[in-house]
This record gives sequence, C-alpha cells and structure tokens, in this order.
Amino acid sequence: MSILKEINNTGLSVSRTEHDSMGDVQVPRNRYWGAQTERSRNNFKIGPKASMPEEIIEAFGFLKKAAAYANKDLNVLPTDKRDLIAKVCDEIIDGKLFGEFPLVIWQTGSGTQSNMNANEVISNRIHVLQGNEMGEGKLYVHPNDDVNKSQSSNDTFPTAMHIAAYKILVDITIPGIEKLRDTLRIKSENFTNVVKIGRTHLMDATPLTLGQEISGYVSQLDHGLKALRHTLDHLSELALGGTAVGTGMNTPKGYDVAVAKYIADFTGLPFRTADNKFEALSAHDAVVESHGALKQIAVSLMHIANNIRMLASGPRCSIGELHLPENEPGSSIMPGKVNPTQNEAVTMVAAQVMGNDVAITVAGSNGQFQLNVFKPVMAANFLQSARLIGDACCSFNEHCALGIEPNYDGIKKHLETSLMLVTALNPHIGYDNSARIAKAALKDNKSLRESAIALGLVTNEQFDEWVRPEDMIGTIK
Amino acid sequence: MSILKEINNTGLSVSRTEHDSMGDVQVPRNRYWGAQTERSRNNFKIGPKASMPEEIIEAFGFLKKAAAYANKDLNVLPTDKRDLIAKVCDEIIDGKLFGEFPLVIWQTGSGTQSNMNANEVISNRIHVLQGNEMGEGKLYVHPNDDVNKSQSSNDTFPTAMHIAAYKILVDITIPGIEKLRDTLRIKSENFTNVVKIGRTHLMDATPLTLGQEISGYVSQLDHGLKALRHTLDHLSELALGGTAVGTGMNTPKGYDVAVAKYIADFTGLPFRTADNKFEALSAHDAVVESHGALKQIAVSLMHIANNIRMLASGPRCSIGELHLPENEPGSSIMPGKVNPTQNEAVTMVAAQVMGNDVAITVAGSNGQFQLNVFKPVMAANFLQSARLIGDACCSFNEHCALGIEPNYDGIKKHLETSLMLVTALNPHIGYDNSARIAKAALKDNKSLRESAIALGLVTNEQFDEWVRPEDMIGTIK
Amino acid sequence: MSILKEINNTGLSVSRTEHDSMGDVQVPRNRYWGAQTERSRNNFKIGPKASMPEEIIEAFGFLKKAAAYANKDLNVLPTDKRDLIAKVCDEIIDGKLFGEFPLVIWQTGSGTQSNMNANEVISNRIHVLQGNEMGEGKLYVHPNDDVNKSQSSNDTFPTAMHIAAYKILVDITIPGIEKLRDTLRIKSENFTNVVKIGRTHLMDATPLTLGQEISGYVSQLDHGLKALRHTLDHLSELALGGTAVGTGMNTPKGYDVAVAKYIADFTGLPFRTADNKFEALSAHDAVVESHGALKQIAVSLMHIANNIRMLASGPRCSIGELHLPENEPGSSIMPGKVNPTQNEAVTMVAAQVMGNDVAITVAGSNGQFQLNVFKPVMAANFLQSARLIGDACCSFNEHCALGIEPNYDGIKKHLETSLMLVTALNPHIGYDNSARIAKAALKDNKSLRESAIALGLVTNEQFDEWVRPEDMIGTIK
Amino acid sequence: MSILKEINNTGLSVSRTEHDSMGDVQVPRNRYWGAQTERSRNNFKIGPKASMPEEIIEAFGFLKKAAAYANKDLNVLPTDKRDLIAKVCDEIIDGKLFGEFPLVIWQTGSGTQSNMNANEVISNRIHVLQGNEMGEGKLYVHPNDDVNKSQSSNDTFPTAMHIAAYKILVDITIPGIEKLRDTLRIKSENFTNVVKIGRTHLMDATPLTLGQEISGYVSQLDHGLKALRHTLDHLSELALGGTAVGTGMNTPKGYDVAVAKYIADFTGLPFRTADNKFEALSAHDAVVESHGALKQIAVSLMHIANNIRMLASGPRCSIGELHLPENEPGSSIMPGKVNPTQNEAVTMVAAQVMGNDVAITVAGSNGQFQLNVFKPVMAANFLQSARLIGDACCSFNEHCALGIEPNYDGIKKHLETSLMLVTALNPHIGYDNSARIAKAALKDNKSLRESAIALGLVTNEQFDEWVRPEDMIGTIK
Repeated sequence: MSILKEINNTGLSVSRTEHDSMGDVQVPRNRYWGAQTERSRNNFKIGPKASMPEEIIEAFGFLKKAAAYANKDLNVLPTDKRDLIAKVCDEIIDGKLFGEFPLVIWQTGSGTQSNMNANEVISNRIHVLQGNEMGEGKLYVHPNDDVNKSQSSNDTFPTAMHIAAYKILVDITIPGIEKLRDTLRIKSENFTNVVKIGRTHLMDATPLTLGQEISGYVSQLDHGLKALRHTLDHLSELALGGTAVGTGMNTPKGYDVAVAKYIADFTGLPFRTADNKFEALSAHDAVVESHGALKQIAVSLMHIANNIRMLASGPRCSIGELHLPENEPGSSIMPGKVNPTQNEAVTMVAAQVMGNDVAITVAGSNGQFQLNVFKPVMAANFLQSARLIGDACCSFNEHCALGIEPNYDGIKKHLETSLMLVTALNPHIGYDNSARIAKAALKDNKSLRESAIALGLVTNEQFDEWVRPEDMIGTIK
Repeated sequence: MSILKEINNTGLSVSRTEHDSMGDVQVPRNRYWGAQTERSRNNFKIGPKASMPEEIIEAFGFLKKAAAYANKDLNVLPTDKRDLIAKVCDEIIDGKLFGEFPLVIWQTGSGTQSNMNANEVISNRIHVLQGNEMGEGKLYVHPNDDVNKSQSSNDTFPTAMHIAAYKILVDITIPGIEKLRDTLRIKSENFTNVVKIGRTHLMDATPLTLGQEISGYVSQLDHGLKALRHTLDHLSELALGGTAVGTGMNTPKGYDVAVAKYIADFTGLPFRTADNKFEALSAHDAVVESHGALKQIAVSLMHIANNIRMLASGPRCSIGELHLPENEPGSSIMPGKVNPTQNEAVTMVAAQVMGNDVAITVAGSNGQFQLNVFKPVMAANFLQSARLIGDACCSFNEHCALGIEPNYDGIKKHLETSLMLVTALNPHIGYDNSARIAKAALKDNKSLRESAIALGLVTNEQFDEWVRPEDMIGTIK
Repeated sequence: MSILKEINNTGLSVSRTEHDSMGDVQVPRNRYWGAQTERSRNNFKIGPKASMPEEIIEAFGFLKKAAAYANKDLNVLPTDKRDLIAKVCDEIIDGKLFGEFPLVIWQTGSGTQSNMNANEVISNRIHVLQGNEMGEGKLYVHPNDDVNKSQSSNDTFPTAMHIAAYKILVDITIPGIEKLRDTLRIKSENFTNVVKIGRTHLMDATPLTLGQEISGYVSQLDHGLKALRHTLDHLSELALGGTAVGTGMNTPKGYDVAVAKYIADFTGLPFRTADNKFEALSAHDAVVESHGALKQIAVSLMHIANNIRMLASGPRCSIGELHLPENEPGSSIMPGKVNPTQNEAVTMVAAQVMGNDVAITVAGSNGQFQLNVFKPVMAANFLQSARLIGDACCSFNEHCALGIEPNYDGIKKHLETSLMLVTALNPHIGYDNSARIAKAALKDNKSLRESAIALGLVTNEQFDEWVRPEDMIGTIK
Repeated sequence: MSILKEINNTGLSVSRTEHDSMGDVQVPRNRYWGAQTERSRNNFKIGPKASMPEEIIEAFGFLKKAAAYANKDLNVLPTDKRDLIAKVCDEIIDGKLFGEFPLVIWQTGSGTQSNMNANEVISNRIHVLQGNEMGEGKLYVHPNDDVNKSQSSNDTFPTAMHIAAYKILVDITIPGIEKLRDTLRIKSENFTNVVKIGRTHLMDATPLTLGQEISGYVSQLDHGLKALRHTLDHLSELALGGTAVGTGMNTPKGYDVAVAKYIADFTGLPFRTADNKFEALSAHDAVVESHGALKQIAVSLMHIANNIRMLASGPRCSIGELHLPENEPGSSIMPGKVNPTQNEAVTMVAAQVMGNDVAITVAGSNGQFQLNVFKPVMAANFLQSARLIGDACCSFNEHCALGIEPNYDGIKKHLETSLMLVTALNPHIGYDNSARIAKAALKDNKSLRESAIALGLVTNEQFDEWVRPEDMIGTIK
C-alpha cells in the first residue's frame, strides 16, 4: 500500500514523506498532492477510478483564485502569494492538473479532502514553479494557512458545486436543449400543411397537422428551459465566506461579498454571496431545485423521443409516418434493419436523470445540524444529468431531428382510412348518430362515407361538405 | 375544538371526560376511543380523513387477541379478561368497529396512538358489553395494564404491519396476479399457431407466434410471483415480544414465541417470532424487501399492459393486431371510439407502485437508534400497492385479458409485407447480400421476393423454399 | 352486480335503465349519475372506495360552468341552459354533490368517465330540479351535446387538474408553509443571542447562535416558496378549447380564450388559455414542474423537522438543546416519555411526497401521441402532496414550532465543554498548534484552557482574550 | 471528425477504410475496432468518455468464446475458427483489449454496436495474430458470419448483462457485505455485556446492551444477503439462443442449452438457458429483481452507518457512546477535528443506489414488443450499485467497523441519568404512578430514585431491588 514507503527495483525511494496534523504519510514522489489527499486516496477505494468530477476541480480553480484576490484586497494575504496562487489556479482551470486529483466521490461527505487536494496541489506546484524539488525545503505558500485562508471545506465545496452546476448549465445543457428546440420549431413550421390522423389512447382520433404535433414538443422544451432558468438564481448564491458553520469565523469583514464578486468576474456568471450561509452549508436545496428542472426536461425528452420513434415505427408493419436518418446498421442478424438509435440514447438518458433525481433528493434531505455531508454525490449526479441532457440533445439534434421527414404515403393512407373523421358530423347529426356510423363502418370494414350513406344519415354531398380533414385542424395554431 | 367540552343545543354535554398521564381530555360521548386517541385526532389534522388503513386495524384485532391468549397462558392475565378482550378483537377483525379508529397515517411515526386507539376501544367496548354506560364507572379491563400487557407500541405496530402485509399479499395480491397469469397462459397456448411479425426497436423484425409473444408475459408474472413469495419469509417474522426497545422488557418468559404461535393460528398464516427483535423495531427491511417485489411486478405489468395496448392500437391507423373487449364509450366527443381503458388503469397503478417504492425506501432507511418512526407511512404505501396490484390484475383479467383476440387480418397483412423475413436468407446468401435485397425493396417499394429476384440473388423457387415464416418461429417454445 | 337489474325485497326495481352509445345500463334509481359512470364504476373495482379527489370534482364544477358561459356568449348554447348548468355547477362547487361521484382514480387514464360523470350528474340534477322524476322523460339538457359542448374529456380533465392544483397550492399549501416560515422567523429573531455549539459531520464544531441555526430553515422555506410560485405560471395555462387532440375541433372561434377568462373570474385565479394545446393534452409537464417544487419543499421539511428533533433529543442522554411542546404520552409502556411526534408526521409526509414525485415523473413521461393517459394518477398524487405539505406545516407550526424553546442548561453545558473553540486560536498560533491543544484536551479529558496552558502555547490571559464564543458567531447575520 | 480521413503531419493516412452494409467508414489505423464501432463512436458523443462498463466487455469475452465452442460442437463453425476466437476472447477476459472498446452507454438501447465492437475486435485481432497488417487483406474470421454466428445483439447483450451482474455480485458485492457482517457480528458478541441506554423517537428509553444494538445490524445484513441470493436464480437464466426476437432463428438445434453450459463452465457460475427467451429479450426483470435486493441492502447500510455515526457523535456535545477510528484530519479550518468519514461514504453510496433503482425501474418497464432498448443504462446502473456496495462495505469494514470501541464513560453517564429506567416500576406500582415519578424527576432535575422516594411511591430498598438496568436487557438475545 502506498501508505508504506514504496521502494522501486533499484532500491531508491519512489515516494516522499508528507506530514499533516495526524502524522507522516508517504506520497508518490512525483505527484503534487500531499498528506491528506493521500490518506483519502488510500482510505476510500470505492469504485474503479478517480471519480471526483473535473467540473468540480475546475471550479476549485476559480474559487481558490478568487479567495486569494479577496484575501489580498482585505490585507490578509500578500500580493506575491496571491499571484502565485492565481497562476496555478489558471493551470487548474485550463485542465492541466486534472491528473493530480486522484480522489473519488465516495469520500467524506463534505469533500474535505478534495478541498485539501486543491490546497496541496497549489502549494506544491508553486513550490516547484519556484525552482524547488518536490518535497524538499519548506513550502512558501502553506496549504491551510495561505491557500485555504478565509475558507473551510464546508463553504468551499458547496461553492464549487454551485460554480460547476451553473457553468455546465449555461455551457452545455441549455445550449443543447435550445439547439434541439430550434430544430423542432423549424420542423413544426415546415410541416404546417401536413394533415395527418391524430391518436389518443393509442387509438385513431381526429386529425391535426404534423406541424401542430411537433409544436407540442417545442412548447415542452420552451417551458423546460424557462423552468431551468428559474433555478439559476438560487444556484448563483455562493456559500463562500461562511467557513466552518456559516458564521464566517476567521474571515475578514466584507470578504464574502468580495470573493463572490471575483468569482463572478472570473467566470463571467452572475454569482453573489448567499443571503443565508447557514442554509448554504447545511442544505443544498438549490441543487435539488435545479435538478428538479433537469428532471422535468428528462420527462419532456422521454415523451418527445418516444413519440418520434413511435411515429417512425415500421417501415411496413407499424405506424410509419416519419422517416428518420439512417445512421448505423440496425442489427447484427437482420440485414437492412435500421433503428431509431438516437431516440434510444435520449430515453436512456431520461431514465438516468430520473434516477439521479432520487439520489439527489435523498442526499439533499439528509443534512445534519450545520452541514450536509452528501455533497460529492449530489454534485456528481447533478453534473452527470446536466451533461447527459446537453450532449444527448446535441446528438439527437444532429443525427436525428435535423433529418426528420414526413412519410407522405403513410400519412395519407392513415388519414383516408380513419373513422374518427366522423367527429365532424357531431354538430350536424348528433353524437349518437355519428357513433352509429363509425361502429357500422368498423364492423362492416367500410369507409365512413359508405357507412354514413348506407345508414341514410348523410348524403354524399353532405359528407363532402362536412367531413374535410383540412377543416378539422382547428382555429388554434 | 373537541378538546373543549362540546355542548349540544339542549345544553347537555355531548362529550365525556377521559384521563391519561397528561391529564383530562374531552372525548365524543358515544365513541369507544379514549384520551390518547382524542389527543392524536386533534393534534394531527393532516389530510382530509381518517386514513389509518383498515388492514392495520384488523391486524391489531389479531394481535391483541393473541397477546391476551399468550398472557393468560403465561399467567399474567386472568381467563375472563382474556375472553373479554378476545370477544372485542373478533368484532374488530369482523370490521364492526372500524368507525372507532379515527386517526390518520400522519401521526407519531411509531403508531403509538393507533395502538392506544385499539387499547382504548377494546377497554371501553368491554365496559359497555358488561352493561355499563360509556365513561361511567371504572374500567374492568385497563387499556395499558391489561389490553397492552406485555406489549409496547414499538413492537405491536410493526407486528400489525407484518400481519396486514402478509395477509393482503396472500388474500388479494397473489390471487389477482395468478388469475391474470393463468388467463395469459391460456391465451398463449391458444395462439400458438398465429404467426405474426416481430418488432424490435419498434421496427419490423423476424416473425414469431402470438402465443410466443404472450408467453413472455406469463414468464414475467411467474418470475414476479416467485420473487414475491421469496419475501414472505421475512414478513413472517413478528416483532411482538420485543416491547419498548427489543429486549422484551416486561414480558414473561416464552411470551414472544407463544404470541406468534397464536397469531399464526388465528390468521392461518405461518408467522413466527422474529429472530432479532432489535432489527424488527428499528428497521423494516422486510417491508422494503417485499415491496421491492411488488415494484418488480409493477414493472412487469407496465410492460405487459403497454404492449397489449400497442398491439391493439388502431383500429385502422396503427398496429391493430389484437382486438380488446369494448367496455365504455371512449370519448365524449369522438363517436364510436373505444379505448384500452383497463390497460390504462394498470399502467397508472404501476406508476403509483413505483412511486410508493421510493416512499418506502426513504422511510425504511431512516430508523434512528432503537426505532424506525416511519411505520404508518410504510404500512400505508405497502398496503396500497398490494391492493392496487391485486385489484388491477383482477380487473384487467376480467375486462380485458379474457377477451383478447387476434385480429387475423391485421396480423396477416403485416406478415406479408414485412422485409425482415430476409433474415432467413442469411445462411444461404450471407448478411451483406440479404441487406442489399431488403434495402432495395424498401427503396423501390417492392416485395422482398421481387427485390431478391430483380437483384439476381435468389430464384423464385429458392425464395419459396427458404423464406417461410412458419419455419422462422424457432425450435424454442 | 349493479349492471343487472337490482330488485329490492318488495319486488320493486331499485334501479333505472340508462342508455349510451353502447347500449342499456342499469343505474341505482336515486343517483344522479348515468350510464357511462355506471360502466366505469363496475369495470374498475380497484381500491377500496371512490377515490377521485374531491378537488377534481370541484374543479369540474368551475369548468363546466365556465364552458356554459362561454358557449352562451358565442351563441352555441341558450341562456336558460347556461343558467341551469351553472346552478348545478354551484352545487358541485359547494360540495353538495360529492356523493354522486363514485369513480376511482384507476379508470381510463384520460378521466373520460369522470368527465361524463360530471356531465351526467349535471343533466340529471337539472332534470330533477325541473320537477321530473329521475330517469323518467327526456332530458332537457343533454350530457354530451349541452353540458359537454365545445369540450372533450381530453381537454376538460387536464383543465380540472390545473384548476385543482393551482387552487390547493394557494389555498392550503402556500399558506401552511408561510405560517411555519413566519413562526420560525420569529423564533430565529428571538434566539439571536443564544450562543451555542455548532456541529458538522455530527461532530462538535465552532459556535453559532440558535437564531442563526433557525435562520437557515427560514431561508430554505423562503427559497422553496419562491420555487413553488415560479411554477404557478405554467399551471395557469388551461387546456380547455383544445378538445379531442388539441386542434380545438368543434369549438366556436374565441372559445378557448373566453372560457379561460370565465374560469379565472369564477376562481379568482389568473388562469389563461394554454399557448400550446398539443402540449396541454399530451404532456403534463406543468404538474411535473410544480410537484418538483413540492418535492424540494419536502426535502427542506425533512431537513428542518429532523434537525429540530435531533436538537431536542434526550431529555438526558442525547443533545437536549431544545424543548418541544408535550402533546401526547409518548409510550404505552415507558411512563413519562414524550416524543417529537409532530416532527415524525412531517418527515413521513416528506417521504410520501418524495415517492409521489416519482409516480408523477413516471406518469408524466408516458404520454403517447396526442394524449397522456396517466392523468388521474398524476392529479391524485399532486393533490395529496399539496394537501399533506400544507396541513403538516400547519400542524407542525401549531403543535410544535410555536412552542420551541431553548434548553439553556443544555446549550450552556455543551458550549463550555466543546473543544472546537480552539479554532479561534488559528490566527494566533496556527492550525497545527491549535490541533495539538485540542487533541491533548480530548486525550487527557481536560478543558481547552487547561490543555493550552499545559502545552505552553497560550497564556491564561491570551486564552481569555482570544477564545470568546460570542465573538465567533460572525460578521454574517 | 474521425469519419473523415485523418491525415497526420507527414501526409500519411492515420486511418484505414472499413466497410459495412451502409458503406465505407474511416477508422483509426491502429485500432482493432471496425466500421460499426466507429459509426457509433461518432454518432453518440454523449458524456465525456468511453463508458460502457468493463464488466460487460469481459462478459462478451465469455459469451463469444462459449458461442464459438457451441457452434463448433453443432458443426456450424470449424475447429480452427473456434480456437482463434477463443484465443482473443481470453485476451478480452484478461482485460488486455479494454482500450479497443471506445463506446458509451448512451448508444442504441440494444447495445448492438457494443456487440459489433466485440465481433470486430475479435475478427481484426485474429487477422493481426495471423500475421497480417490491420485493414489489409481479407478477414479469415468474419465479424457477423463467424464471430456472431448463432447470435444477435438482442440475445448477446442481455446475456452479457446477466454474466456481468451475477459475477460482480459473487466476486465483489456479497464478499464485501459478508466481511462487514462478520465484523459486526464479532463486535456484537464482544459487547454483549455493555449495558447502555436505549433510544426511541430519539428520546431516552429503556436499556439494552451494545451487543444487542449491533446485533440488529447483523440481522439486517443477513436478511439482505438472503434476499440478494434469492435473486441469483433469475439472473442465472441466459437469453443466448433467442437471437433476434426470441425464437432462436438461425441457431442450430440444442444450441441454447449448449452455449449456456459453456458459459457456466468458463465462468464457474451456474448459468443455464432461460426458460423463456421472449421475456429474456423484451424485459429485464431479473435485473430489476436483483437490484431491488441491492436497494434493500442500501436501505440497511444507510441505517447502520447513520446510527453508528450518531452513536459516535461528539466527542463532547452529542451522544459520544462509541469511538471510531481516526483516519483523516476532519477539517481544513477546525484543528483536531475528526469525522465519521467512512460512514459518510457509505451513506452517499446508499443514496446513489436508491437513485439507480429508479433508473432501473423506469428503464426496465419500457420494453416495447420483442425488445427492451434500455439495456446499457440498466447494466451500467446495476454494475455501479453492485461495485459501490461491495467496495463501500470493505472500506467501511476496514477503516471503521473493525475499530469500533465503546466509550465506556459516555455510556455509563447516560445510563445513570436516564429516566426511562422507571419502566421497571410498571409491574409494581402501575404505569400512571411510574409516569408521575419520571415527570417529577425531569421537572425538578432529580434522579429517579430521589423522585420516587419523594413521592412516597417506592422505598429505597424497593428501588434497589426493582430498578436494575442489567435485569432490563431481556430474556431475548
């Protein structure tokens, strides 16, 4: 185990000794992390790999830099230390040091060792940038006293959660949904004259246009985006400045406002200090709230992707009213088969997001006293959902939605044979007579017209005048 | 408020004064319940009505009677008190006193006041049966000292949960599922020669028989029943005898085994005392476990009911391969419409059970120290799921499954036009050539045979010999 | 079965014959419902009782009345029929006819027969109000052609869902939450000087005030209320006017806007016609969205109620920093025990709402083509959650929150013995030295002061000056 | 995009051309995968990295090898091809080719391209092993016609799911749980004489031993293991042999039984062919069932880990009855703080598993016709849960459970001050008198003894005789 001193073949040590308040720890010689990271790495061998999301690590880059700036402004950190810290934070933000963050989600629920991981990496990286050997000599910038100044894991980790969550929503999730929404809107407009049969309870119903049908999907995504944007305000509140229990102990006056301002500047997003730091540490309702909107969008996507594949089902033995792009051979055994694979990816993503919502719900409800210790699992589930929805919308858009075309033959065949056009007769001959016509037509395998005339309820001319699918698609857009 | 003395129009009191260790309480004069029930009734006005499940109340009848018998056998209760208690318990079991149980689910999480409700009703009912006026004179059988002897809410309520849960499973749930399973099995056997097109990814695939398709549903329900039966053993363990914290304090030696034996006798079900009473009070994993099986069955039912309605979709513009019974006019506006309403009820039940599973999961995971205080919500969700599944299976069986018939015209039409029969050519001309035939047929709107011959890959005779749907339904049943 | 003619003891029929497009049905003679209601009543014996929520029935009262008014204005219904319909709708709204709605949630997923139930009851009640015998003579106001004019089940039921959902939120849910929030705010202000120990990871941490601790709960509820109010706009969109598939077939021009206006007038709530009727019938994302906010509030309530009971745990062997009101004897076996029963009710409600959220998620994602047929189960779960949260907040407020008082002795004892006050030494002697003091104190069972002086790291005077709990509660409110 | 021909700096092609039934595809020159894998890799850029679980890839190694053996035995594959396929399968099983599987979970829901990925890698790897250049010359062993012989994605992927699921349960999950269970059992036995106060509703209750308390956890895990083992039988059923829709088309007679036998041999696990292949393709209830047991275990672990940390809370301001091992410095700001971090990891894992259960439930319920197309998401969630539970139990066992020790001082202090010992007086002086004593003691801040004597209800000698904690821990183990 790496806690022990590892000796390589030539007899030279491949580890170095680090120290924290619990004592000595052996750390791989060439890695920037320190004693506490190493403890966590060894104590939590849960899951196959380093799983702390990179978005969280990037967010630590932003917040450590902002803290250094605010600390300098408030005269508790010298300028040169601020600049050294900022320099390494920029490397973290650029993704150059992700390999130095070996920890897993399944560690302490406060993410303390991931906060210390950031502190240790920044300290040691500065040390090396200053021309020193790793592990030799005294650190000029101390992990706790300098890098972590005016901070606690308890306020940094939730701050990182909000930064990462807000950022992925505006960078990945919302643009992905908008892309799909825009395509569907264009399709809806393009197909505004394609009259087709409607279906309710999976049974034939009165007609509508394909454009109208797709407009419902557009409306769902519009509402979903609106709901998601409503949640951004709560996410914009940052815990930083609350330190250990929310009181802001060991922070200079004005620090919480100042540090949030710097984070807003560095990220270009409207972050501000949380109105109430006690909530911000002990509960993560902002994450619950925002993921609730992601879950709503998952519900919409499940509906949209499922309906599109049902409309495209066939090509000959099902509904077959849409053509979808053909992307991969559909079967390793059935030649020529093509499947709605993009829809399948989207619906699988939707199922995952629904599950993640429960994980977040359970985790979010279990804060105890001044701290919720389910932070990493909440962050991981949120970030997975946000990315999957964004990516899946882009993929579905590019490889499916853009290529959706009506199968005019299929649409026409169904419209002509449907019995539910009979509804147009209600105002003229009443519901009960109309029902007689439809039932007789189905029973005798006749068309509506034949049945209506045979029953003597409507003349041929009346049928022409009254039963016009193009008039049945409504005064409503 | 009923805590205050209610005075009717004539100036006479309509309440009587009851007393418990906290003081006096006014109780409606003509009701059998006492002080503690009344306190809970007034302190928990949550939800519109008395909502403690009747199955729990019935189970209290069984367990209070069993406790009286065991107490008598172990010489801590005289025979006449045992018989008086048993007499009223029989009334409770017969449902005659349900109106005397006015409490809600959303009370104390131990169900203490529902246990006291039972104790109080039994005491007072005995008092009246002995010829006394309600509330006048001293109770011969004391609610705590006699009816509750050798018991605590903490072991009675979970015992009632297990009795009620086991009983509803064998009385309602399992018979309902079996009824549906049996019908589907018969249908599967009846339709063993109905060759039809298969569908994967909603797209046309190679054929199978309708009997084979339905046999999958039968297999799901068989596995579900097996899984559900596996959970009965854990449910058969009873907490009774653990009293306050699981140690069995204030119970005579041998009581736990004896009282479980009586409950087994009275219910005719194989109950036994729990191996570990500390688990039995502080966790309800048996309920979690058994509801997990109900949730699995909900998953199966969602699948079955959904697929049957998709197969029956139409009648003219969708798949239309099954006829379902017509039970109600399907639309208040579209004449002649008939819908798969039984399937809709089943799928709604499935969604409910999936939700209930999460409620039970959350509740079950939150036991603290010696007690889980989410007992009533766990019981209520379990019993709802168990009843809904049982009832919905019966309803679906009677009003839908029994009447399922193939739509031979629809089945034949699809089988004849499908392109996926091409799969039968793989062993003869290879996957890639077969794919060329299928793609050409689809593109040119031709039959497979036409396309195969046009491409010069197969002769007419070979096609006859190789492409035979009835040979493609396999060596597997 | 009631489908058969029921004959009472004297040989007289106790049923009457009703008729719909499927044929004759026997209906109980004295009930207002008709053929379709009776079919559904007999075809769906799922669950123990009529379970369609009364809020939905009331909402049908509002919408049927509004439809009559809009129809009259647009000249498709005569004034006298409008007034007759409105009169009975007022009776429905007043709750006088709830007994005439015998159907269950687990019926057709469109709620068609509940819509017809309303139509039939209104027709027949008018008939009787006009002086006729039930079932005798011709109905002046026809269930389908008059009461249901310009409507379909497919647009009425989702409209009823939104009316009922919006109404219960503003009538019950929001006021309940606000009541609790206001009480907690006052408590937070009252306890602003009560300095106490903080706890993170369940372990002793730096101090804060009781007022600060409670302010976190207030902030959670404030955010929850804000999130919930954000969802009202989507709920204010009404499907009515979409009729069968969303196109508005068989409605007069302007009807959708007009009918929504009347519903807004009659309910006093800002309803408007849905921008997109195709979404409004085929998806119920508004319900998903709004219940997402209820679930967030459930998460908050779980946290709040759980923390308050942990703070009040004891009285002697746990934390014991709060006194809660004593409402019921807590144990049927342990004398003098008092339990946090209101907290238990609240946390059970929270678990239920978390489960309901999954039921709604699953149901909401399963719309097929022009209709989602999980409407009743979505409505029922939503209304249950909304009522339970509102009621539970009121109950918790009245019987617990209002009476919360600090246990000053317990608070003081913990504050004095805590080791985490050592954090105040960080800026003076550094993190590592402070850690040595705390560890030594714990090991040697000493006070911080004793340990600090023994280690020679701090003088008595310095300790007095630096370690002042009242200075550690921060610059943040 | 990699679909385009990639040209490196020197102008040489770094890709090769591959071909499938849809046409040409450019594939990275040095990778073993082929056209279909590359299509999927480019069409599904969802999530940050290759995410198809390695356990699934390993399972494909087992099943492809078994298929080759069965095909050879049934004379549809020559011996040399069998041996070549088997050789590469062994490399896959040994993990040597994981890098050749670049696909994500979020692809087609049948996992078709992951099946083809295996077929392509095996073909090309054989080609290279035979001394050829990748992409040059004709493949001797064809991906579809040889490697995939007698198979379809539709039966291979669910077979891989069952192999992977069963294997991880017996390799990782069950041993992990057993390790923890065994440790807790030993602790329970070691602490059999440690009498301590019990707590119900978080309030002081009658005593029990620490051994009894822990025995409840042991019993939970025992029941959980039993429940999990019950699910193995369903998982042991393999879909292989069903091919495209369950009929076994294009398989030689006896193949399904034979191939399952080989899989059993190669894995050493009791796999057998599924009784019903139609269920095995269109539903994955076995996965739902088995994950239901994992979720039950998550419920148990949430309870166990939560209770242990509550018992260890403090060290001075909470319950403090247990000492847990100190593994990491607990705070970056509070010196000397140590937290129950292992418990936090376990409870986060539990929350994740609860969420995964919903993802699996939703996915499992959505099979359509002959295929469920949520296979990869079901597999991924199952395997994550199984591994997390196994790993977390090991971690918790090693770094926490093994080191649990009673804090005798804390335990003694609580036992002596508790009021609930009064319960022992019930049989002697009745519940109501006992309640008076307890209430007076609490009110007057006295001991029970003082209060009992002051009220004149018990003498000093009686108190000694009747109130003995060591006699209150029951006749029950």
